[in-house]
Amino acid sequence: MRLRDIGENALIERIRTRFPPPEGVLGIGDDAAIFDVPAGQSLVFCSDLVVEDTHFLRTLHPADAVGYKAVAVNVSDVGAMGGVPMYFLISLAAPADVGLDWIDAFYDGVERACRDFGVRLLGGDASAADLILADVAMAGRVPQGAAVRRSGAQPGDGIYVTGALGASLWGLDLLRAGERDHPAVQRHLYPRPRHRIGAAVAAAAHAMIDISDGLSMDLWRIASASKVSARIYKEKIPAAPGAPESHVLHGGEEYELIIAAPVLPTGAEGVPITRIGEIAPSTAGNQVFLVEDNRESILHPGGWQHF
Amino acid sequence: MRLRDIGENALIERIRTRFPPPEGVLGIGDDAAIFDVPAGQSLVFCSDLVVEDTHFLRTLHPADAVGYKAVAVNVSDVGAMGGVPMYFLISLAAPADVGLDWIDAFYDGVERACRDFGVRLLGGDASAADLILADVAMAGRVPQGAAVRRSGAQPGDGIYVTGALGASLWGLDLLRAGERDHPAVQRHLYPRPRHRIGAAVAAAAHAMIDISDGLSMDLWRIASASKVSARIYKEKIPAAPGAPESHVLHGGEEYELIIAAPVLPTGAEGVPITRIGEIAPSTAGNQVFLVEDNRESILHPGGWQHF
Repeated sequence: MRLRDIGENALIERIRTRFPPPEGVLGIGDDAAIFDVPAGQSLVFCSDLVVEDTHFLRTLHPADAVGYKAVAVNVSDVGAMGGVPMYFLISLAAPADVGLDWIDAFYDGVERACRDFGVRLLGGDASAADLILADVAMAGRVPQGAAVRRSGAQPGDGIYVTGALGASLWGLDLLRAGERDHPAVQRHLYPRPRHRIGAAVAAAAHAMIDISDGLSMDLWRIASASKVSARIYKEKIPAAPGAPESHVLHGGEEYELIIAAPVLPTGAEGVPITRIGEIAPSTAGNQVFLVEDNRESILHPGGWQHF
Repeated sequence: MRLRDIGENALIERIRTRFPPPEGVLGIGDDAAIFDVPAGQSLVFCSDLVVEDTHFLRTLHPADAVGYKAVAVNVSDVGAMGGVPMYFLISLAAPADVGLDWIDAFYDGVERACRDFGVRLLGGDASAADLILADVAMAGRVPQGAAVRRSGAQPGDGIYVTGALGASLWGLDLLRAGERDHPAVQRHLYPRPRHRIGAAVAAAAHAMIDISDGLSMDLWRIASASKVSARIYKEKIPAAPGAPESHVLHGGEEYELIIAAPVLPTGAEGVPITRIGEIAPSTAGNQVFLVEDNRESILHPGGWQHF
């Protein structure tokens, strides 16, 4: 069975039956979804695209991982503001000759992400297209005035990262080489966003970002937005065991958090939080300095850029 | 200049500079946008895809119309719930060799839509892809408990439509034939969502939907969701002058409203509201009946379905 065999109305009905809304919320099946934001909370609002042949290959990435990751990356973005993700929409474009098994597996991954992250699918759109593409728009909540921006880092703050770095891009390398079961491959396919840590440390944090494009790029974004510089120490950076060094510094799709804060605990939610350096006043531009063997060099943003 | 000549960071910076957020709102440039929902209001949440070669042709549709319409269709969806659209995200996928002039013109259309509809762009995502695709996610507000669903139509309700039907698909026909300035072409390229009417009549309405897939399809959706039938009268349906009859009944992308209500005024916001029939109890299924010259026939949903 292919998408064209069931048509758009039947596809939407399939998804609607599978993702019933919680009590008091209007979900899939009307012109728009309707839900309430608790009193005293602001809305957190973000979206993230996953595109075939750019973010995934149909021949390489299982469909359920594509669905899982599309949700996870948005959960991560809400968490990086210190927010709690709540509800999301999926706009899915696909060729009419895509097998229904691919579509069903994609929503298997979405459903698993809903369970893992405590979020609910409320709607979206579907369209024919010459390639598969999913855009997830996520709404979350954050106490009013408590959102943690990229721009608040102050000289003297510590620079912290959650978890360990380098496994996601390494996992993609391994996947391309034919591996399936290596922990790094699983990490690449089913990322673990740190939204619960983001919400837990928000009150103590001056600036926060999730690592979607690499430590060097995303730390540079904090430095640039905060008009400061950053100094990190090579030997303090928590590397995933076995991951290539350049992946630790520049690998994207980590979905760990970079947090600038005076002081943080050494872990939260069972995940280590490691101090890797400190925020410094900006001298010539907003740069990231890497200290290795007592030598300091400029760490240029080396992560992923589209186009 | 092409997209690949400026890169992703510069593209986002261009868009950020052009769309500053209103006071008290965090817009483009962080992991997520942040805004407040007024007390006593629920959030209205929807998204809508626009895909090259499915919804538009790069050789036929001006880029600014693609941007304008991507916003307009979401404004229409929020309005069809009786809501007031507020803020949106755009996820844009495009080939790296697309000219910057196309991108700039696309955002010209987005900017014009912001002015026309009173909405603001707060963020989104960008990605390389083999075709151009834009997904808009819109957030609006509606007084708690006041959203108008598709499912509330009751036997005895009048069936009303705003404006006139048939021009949008006719405009596409004319555009394909080389016309540019015909009013129907303008209507197709720059639709006028009826969100202000939707909010104005919400308290009086039992059910409401916008016509995105054609009168026959979208009225059937009200009948089906409300578990009723619908009877409309051919000579009462307001047709755009000159529009082919099948376009009046089945043409999509109208973005007029179908409203089921005991009684409505004959116009609002300068737009006529026409009673075209009535909701009837469901007998054999949830059907739409068309009465013409005192003969009644079943009007099968003939509008657009993807796949």
